[in-house]
Amino acid sequence: MPFKSAPLNPHQNDGTGTAFDLVIRNAKLCTAADVFETDIAIKDGVVVCLGKKLAKGTREIDAKGRTVTPGGVDAHCHLDQPLAPPARMADDFETGTRSAACGGTTTIIPFAAQEKGQSLIAAVEDYHQRAGDLSCIDYSFHLIVSDPTPEVLDRELPELIAKGYSSFKIYMTYDDLKLDDGQILDVLDIARRHGALPMIHAENSDCIKWLTKRLKARGHTAPRYHADARPAIVEREAAHRAISLAELVDVQLLIVHVSGIEAIEQIQMAKARGVNIHAETCPQYLFLTAADLGLDGEYEGAQCVCSPPPRDPENQKHVWRGLENGLFSVFSSDHAPFKYDDAAGKKPNGCEVDFDHIPNGIPGLETRLPLLYSEGVLTGRIPVTRFVELTSTNPAKLYGLYPRKGTLAIGSDADLVIWGDQPVTITNDALHHAVDYTPYEGRVLGAWPAYTVSRGEVVWDGKQYTGRKGHGEFIARSRPFQEITDDQ
Amino acid sequence: MPFKSAPLNPHQNDGTGTAFDLVIRNAKLCTAADVFETDIAIKDGVVVCLGKKLAKGTREIDAKGRTVTPGGVDAHCHLDQPLAPPARMADDFETGTRSAACGGTTTIIPFAAQEKGQSLIAAVEDYHQRAGDLSCIDYSFHLIVSDPTPEVLDRELPELIAKGYSSFKIYMTYDDLKLDDGQILDVLDIARRHGALPMIHAENSDCIKWLTKRLKARGHTAPRYHADARPAIVEREAAHRAISLAELVDVQLLIVHVSGIEAIEQIQMAKARGVNIHAETCPQYLFLTAADLGLDGEYEGAQCVCSPPPRDPENQKHVWRGLENGLFSVFSSDHAPFKYDDAAGKKPNGCEVDFDHIPNGIPGLETRLPLLYSEGVLTGRIPVTRFVELTSTNPAKLYGLYPRKGTLAIGSDADLVIWGDQPVTITNDALHHAVDYTPYEGRVLGAWPAYTVSRGEVVWDGKQYTGRKGHGEFIARSRPFQEITDDQ
Amino acid sequence: MPFKSAPLNPHQNDGTGTAFDLVIRNAKLCTAADVFETDIAIKDGVVVCLGKKLAKGTREIDAKGRTVTPGGVDAHCHLDQPLAPPARMADDFETGTRSAACGGTTTIIPFAAQEKGQSLIAAVEDYHQRAGDLSCIDYSFHLIVSDPTPEVLDRELPELIAKGYSSFKIYMTYDDLKLDDGQILDVLDIARRHGALPMIHAENSDCIKWLTKRLKARGHTAPRYHADARPAIVEREAAHRAISLAELVDVQLLIVHVSGIEAIEQIQMAKARGVNIHAETCPQYLFLTAADLGLDGEYEGAQCVCSPPPRDPENQKHVWRGLENGLFSVFSSDHAPFKYDDAAGKKPNGCEVDFDHIPNGIPGLETRLPLLYSEGVLTGRIPVTRFVELTSTNPAKLYGLYPRKGTLAIGSDADLVIWGDQPVTITNDALHHAVDYTPYEGRVLGAWPAYTVSRGEVVWDGKQYTGRKGHGEFIARSRPFQEITDDQ
Amino acid sequence: MPFKSAPLNPHQNDGTGTAFDLVIRNAKLCTAADVFETDIAIKDGVVVCLGKKLAKGTREIDAKGRTVTPGGVDAHCHLDQPLAPPARMADDFETGTRSAACGGTTTIIPFAAQEKGQSLIAAVEDYHQRAGDLSCIDYSFHLIVSDPTPEVLDRELPELIAKGYSSFKIYMTYDDLKLDDGQILDVLDIARRHGALPMIHAENSDCIKWLTKRLKARGHTAPRYHADARPAIVEREAAHRAISLAELVDVQLLIVHVSGIEAIEQIQMAKARGVNIHAETCPQYLFLTAADLGLDGEYEGAQCVCSPPPRDPENQKHVWRGLENGLFSVFSSDHAPFKYDDAAGKKPNGCEVDFDHIPNGIPGLETRLPLLYSEGVLTGRIPVTRFVELTSTNPAKLYGLYPRKGTLAIGSDADLVIWGDQPVTITNDALHHAVDYTPYEGRVLGAWPAYTVSRGEVVWDGKQYTGRKGHGEFIARSRPFQEITDDQ
Repeated sequence: MPFKSAPLNPHQNDGTGTAFDLVIRNAKLCTAADVFETDIAIKDGVVVCLGKKLAKGTREIDAKGRTVTPGGVDAHCHLDQPLAPPARMADDFETGTRSAACGGTTTIIPFAAQEKGQSLIAAVEDYHQRAGDLSCIDYSFHLIVSDPTPEVLDRELPELIAKGYSSFKIYMTYDDLKLDDGQILDVLDIARRHGALPMIHAENSDCIKWLTKRLKARGHTAPRYHADARPAIVEREAAHRAISLAELVDVQLLIVHVSGIEAIEQIQMAKARGVNIHAETCPQYLFLTAADLGLDGEYEGAQCVCSPPPRDPENQKHVWRGLENGLFSVFSSDHAPFKYDDAAGKKPNGCEVDFDHIPNGIPGLETRLPLLYSEGVLTGRIPVTRFVELTSTNPAKLYGLYPRKGTLAIGSDADLVIWGDQPVTITNDALHHAVDYTPYEGRVLGAWPAYTVSRGEVVWDGKQYTGRKGHGEFIARSRPFQEITDDQ
Repeated sequence: MPFKSAPLNPHQNDGTGTAFDLVIRNAKLCTAADVFETDIAIKDGVVVCLGKKLAKGTREIDAKGRTVTPGGVDAHCHLDQPLAPPARMADDFETGTRSAACGGTTTIIPFAAQEKGQSLIAAVEDYHQRAGDLSCIDYSFHLIVSDPTPEVLDRELPELIAKGYSSFKIYMTYDDLKLDDGQILDVLDIARRHGALPMIHAENSDCIKWLTKRLKARGHTAPRYHADARPAIVEREAAHRAISLAELVDVQLLIVHVSGIEAIEQIQMAKARGVNIHAETCPQYLFLTAADLGLDGEYEGAQCVCSPPPRDPENQKHVWRGLENGLFSVFSSDHAPFKYDDAAGKKPNGCEVDFDHIPNGIPGLETRLPLLYSEGVLTGRIPVTRFVELTSTNPAKLYGLYPRKGTLAIGSDADLVIWGDQPVTITNDALHHAVDYTPYEGRVLGAWPAYTVSRGEVVWDGKQYTGRKGHGEFIARSRPFQEITDDQ
Repeated sequence: MPFKSAPLNPHQNDGTGTAFDLVIRNAKLCTAADVFETDIAIKDGVVVCLGKKLAKGTREIDAKGRTVTPGGVDAHCHLDQPLAPPARMADDFETGTRSAACGGTTTIIPFAAQEKGQSLIAAVEDYHQRAGDLSCIDYSFHLIVSDPTPEVLDRELPELIAKGYSSFKIYMTYDDLKLDDGQILDVLDIARRHGALPMIHAENSDCIKWLTKRLKARGHTAPRYHADARPAIVEREAAHRAISLAELVDVQLLIVHVSGIEAIEQIQMAKARGVNIHAETCPQYLFLTAADLGLDGEYEGAQCVCSPPPRDPENQKHVWRGLENGLFSVFSSDHAPFKYDDAAGKKPNGCEVDFDHIPNGIPGLETRLPLLYSEGVLTGRIPVTRFVELTSTNPAKLYGLYPRKGTLAIGSDADLVIWGDQPVTITNDALHHAVDYTPYEGRVLGAWPAYTVSRGEVVWDGKQYTGRKGHGEFIARSRPFQEITDDQ
Repeated sequence: MPFKSAPLNPHQNDGTGTAFDLVIRNAKLCTAADVFETDIAIKDGVVVCLGKKLAKGTREIDAKGRTVTPGGVDAHCHLDQPLAPPARMADDFETGTRSAACGGTTTIIPFAAQEKGQSLIAAVEDYHQRAGDLSCIDYSFHLIVSDPTPEVLDRELPELIAKGYSSFKIYMTYDDLKLDDGQILDVLDIARRHGALPMIHAENSDCIKWLTKRLKARGHTAPRYHADARPAIVEREAAHRAISLAELVDVQLLIVHVSGIEAIEQIQMAKARGVNIHAETCPQYLFLTAADLGLDGEYEGAQCVCSPPPRDPENQKHVWRGLENGLFSVFSSDHAPFKYDDAAGKKPNGCEVDFDHIPNGIPGLETRLPLLYSEGVLTGRIPVTRFVELTSTNPAKLYGLYPRKGTLAIGSDADLVIWGDQPVTITNDALHHAVDYTPYEGRVLGAWPAYTVSRGEVVWDGKQYTGRKGHGEFIARSRPFQEITDDQ
């Protein structure tokens, strides 16, 4: 389907000889389709000229032999999201965006979450307060709709979509968030009519509760039972149901964090019959397995508790295959920053809690791009064009940020990564988030960003964070799809 | 998989102020990933600069509001191919490439076909003779391997691949061309080891013969029985077999001219299990049906006799869906130019012949791009980026022409189309091939190329052919895949 | 899986020479596996001897050349079920069983339905009151569980299963009946542990409500919109969900009244992955389509309103295929007797009501066997053994009536049909139910039962009902599956 | 589809008081549908009466508490089949049928194989010579068609079908047997028109040769490479092709010895789209794996060399599932008796030969029923009715032996097994074939036949063979399907 365009950054350059602000020389520039050598000229934060031997820039970086990709768009991450105490997210907009920048991500879309009973507009306003001027890269907000009252459906949502909040997530699980099927249909219908993209967390809530109760009745409380409480069938069922609801409404739908073959097959079948389902996966489904949740009697696996849980090596293969063969459209972090050893964390006040009380989520904003670039591109599993598509172009298009974000073309924001070519070992010490661990500690990667540039400014130079709080701007997004005004 | 690069055109521009040869202003430039407004500066036949308000060009074209796409790469067409008399192709390299140019295609890859008993190298040399200096756009040759002797397998093929003939077609039908399964395995194995791309015509020869014999025994000889002699099962079986052979050898394979759901499902299943199958379809499977072959007692349907035959409206829907959802990688014409009323044509010397004696094939070089652009892009079925991918970028990548061909990026050949925006009615009178009919006579299209540019030269200006014989160059292609030297 | 046996009728015959009560001579006896010629000797209501030229019987019937099948077991029918006024079922146990007998059915299993808030045991007791001594053929009760309180789950259900109520139906739709997914899991788990068979009505309630609301908002209230409010997707979704829940619990499950390809495919995939799903279909999905619901402005189609609604001819083909290839285990009537022109009927007091207020259901007890025998067996679509399996043996086995019911073997109840061989035209006048229409009025069948025998007594002689109220006995059924005592 | 009947044994009993020849008391008689307690009265080799407390028999056997099943019909076995020297089958009709009888099989259908160039009728006559009067149980012949000349197709085959040779096997592999696709279509068409059942060995010959050549070129010659030369893809491809050919011709087809999930999926899909494909599997795909072929440097695995080769434990599970869920219609031995240590055997004259020179096949006539009864029925995996269906009723029906063979009903031949209830350890010493090994040596089974009865005569009494050469009769079979006389 044809995507509608996001508003371009108004700061344009005349290209007639004035010095460029920044010229990146001899880049091996990669878009979602192409790889070619060129200089990249930037003025007022925007790409203004491509070609060889371009005129001088105020600043120049020689990228000779280096791969240059559009900056990452992380369309699924959680920062400073209001939660029921004692749970509290470790990252706010400052630490979160700093961490993202140092890993090559230049745009994020965290979630303004409605609490049940709350106005959606109030939730958005509150979230703007939280963002304040803390962000060092550009950002936008998805909505989370947890209470689709008539007021929300008829007034707030259409209004917010029009104002640039053109996507929203709904949940099929978590008591404080989940919608029933009738509510889902209502929300999907709003998405369809107003050209927004709905996202869905597909796990069957009742099944999870039922299994959890049984497991706990048998004394199974360790983190490892988190995986048993959320088996693949539970995800498959919800994926099938979500697809069916979208099919009924005839709306595009994105299924977030797909973990393995069971849900993948549902998506394949949907696509084959012409249903417009988009799918996202995350690093945890490529690099972790349920074994990382530990054994009975072990607790450290709590660090890897996320939903859906990581599966097994066979499922990892299927997720890789989905990245290779086009099944997945988007690769996101689902960054959900909870400390391990912290009053508001996974081991609150040093106590081991039952698996169903461990805050769900894994940090990943900073490692998302380097993991996929190293294990996907450098190993030859996926071409670099596919990497760009998954991590930047597709999320920008699907969420209405394109062409301002998601590519390096004339007129686009000068958000980019110049990739290093030296192996790097991941250690939490070297990361920039506020979480006290990374699930990838000790993993050796083939490369890490040598520079991250956000609207023409270098915010990571390969050694240290060089950005600044407040550089990041809120971006009102366009509608990804046509509005449907004449419905019968 | 990462594609290896084709050799770039050596004529580079310094970009430092010398006048450009041609500047296209205010283009809405479309690649396989991106759409953005820019000027396009061309020098020595190559794109040298993108940006706004670029310096002057010797010639300028204002493309304000116009879509500009990379010139089409038609990777499946037949021109002046040696055939057993009386069959003879109507188009040679002059009329064929002229026709292509006037429809927006700037590169073609016709087939140097080995006759059984013939040296493959001799076939290539002969085909170069036929091309002579007739071509007005760039061209390359696929090979057709019909006699894989040890000499061909061990010496000729590797040598030809190394010299730029890095793809070859094999047939599962037609007595003078078809290989048995053992020969197919041998040829696929050469492709795999030398990094070439094999293409396959998938129809079961024995079934077609058996059905043809039965039909004729019952007096069914009209063109319409061509479709009954080649039902979808026959294509599905061969597709499954071809996929299985490629799976055994572990080689990438492209299935040409896929006609409907039966073969599509085989390809879907192959992709889902991780087999690297690429698929091509053609305009005849979108715009014709078996009904176009006529009724009993009618003969004009002979004009639409091609193999596989066009199917029915339900299959057309499935082919469209395959273009939309990524199943197909390539959209080609399978141009096979036989006159209708001609001694060497479909109604030889005015005689109606049995369906199995009608030369197989349909003209389509000139109409391929306008048909898909009008019915696919302008109707909103597929985004223009997907159009570019299917008609230009993917064939260029899969066949080793990229990045010289297949995109509009710095350093690429300046092969492009500026699209018109006025409706056009197809008439054979207005086409430039040497065939005496078009199956699309009278069809109204939403747009036609306003300009076709080949290496910086305007070869079609929207009204007339402005190219010249001999402008087209032969392109030695790179290997699309890695060679495998260490095989066990 | 091996089925456990139902208690045999204790009335056994010594076979040593005493006169038989009834001998059926020269029968072409058909079981679910075999067809052979034999006399059938009956004493005390039980089959005691098979062979040729058997000794005399007090009564004899010559079945020369006639097919004899086990009497039908109709495992899905509704009689005198308590409903919210004004709805009231037209048939009670007398008219219903009389009608069944005249159509060749000798055992029925209607539903003792729990109202929300009601004790399940009370519902059973009430239903026994309703049955009284009205029945002229044997009968048993399924339960309907609409309120699975701890008392129901922990005490009543296990107790009732032990007492012979070894199957129960649950609903995914209808506000007064439907369970949520957690409740379904609870009930399935009881079935699994106590060896009972759960049945499920699979349609997504929320979707139906949402669609109904939309249709009515647009003024679409005619009976035909019943089909639009319950499209195949809604059934497919629920089937997938039901299968997933059964898969989680690891219990056998029977999906009732499957209407077409969408649900069939879900069941196929489940079986292929080893899930023990059984499926039932009904005459309305073979012989009616949505077109029978009429057009806008027509109301008589209300007679064909049932859920799921009849689909289209293509789906009819798929349902036939499922009968042929083993997908379906059971063929039932889903007899739900509502008069058309009646205060408690489909056109209450002569008023046309909105489609969602028309009582759901179609009469079919009497026509079920003749329809399938005529259109399935006599046409050659299915062998007579498969007919016996679908209409008698399988329901008897799956619901714990076997071998007392479901076959004609030594020791089984002498319940049988001797088939006529003359064409018959269905007219409601000739039927014996209390409903004022049949959806099959005017349809010509190839054959109708010439005799129905219930425990050795002729209850239908081809011309008139010869049975008597009170002949029918309640049958406590055995558990179809093993109990699972040691669960971890 | 309705099966046509085989001619019944003309020896009928009057049932009026004359002493029966044999009465089996208190049997738990199992058919493909039913299980019930009864005496079984036999006269003149035929079942004449079922009932309790039947009159005296000349001989009586008390089967109290014992399961009694119809004698096995082994529809896939090779005995004394002419082969190119030095290969020679170890079993002739005497040792083969003796062995079958001692394992509960009472009817076999070996193959009268046409050599290329030979008349089919001559092959049948030769095979009758070989059978002579050696057989101790009833037998019939399948044909093997290896040279479908016009004479064979137009005269011999129709004539032989009419005379009782109503099934034939064709091969897609083995140079001396295999047909090309056109020949297969010709043969399938004869089957269709004359109501015969074709069987097919589905493996792609060219692929096997190509892989074999590669393996041997690398020095891989041990028995284990037999499995690598015939991977599952090779079987899947041929199964898909065979199904497609049958689909084109619209004929029923039975695929023999299906080994795993790849072919199973093809059959599932065929059945789902309404194609009448029947499938057979064999003990080797339940109880052996490729690991039984040994390691490099080992040779004893030659004993397990058969085609297709045994796969892996995962495939065994899928084959079991196919037995459970109805995918398979027939369970045969594919008995192919080659000695291990013998001039004509697997290690000829003590020499280890390359894997492709090892005679293909495994002995199994005697162990087929006890293996499936013990591991399938006694373990609860399949009900005993399904066991009867797979091993006796279905092969009898599909091959035109029913109802004379395949069940225990009035008028059927008194071929039966009374099952023992004691564990038995398989040792080759205790078997009765002429082969010097069994692949199941040492395996402990839950039960073995206590008696085998062939037409009323006890041929195995649980300890020794009590039959006699010449008791077995040749059975001319009826056509399983309708002839099609009016074809257009």
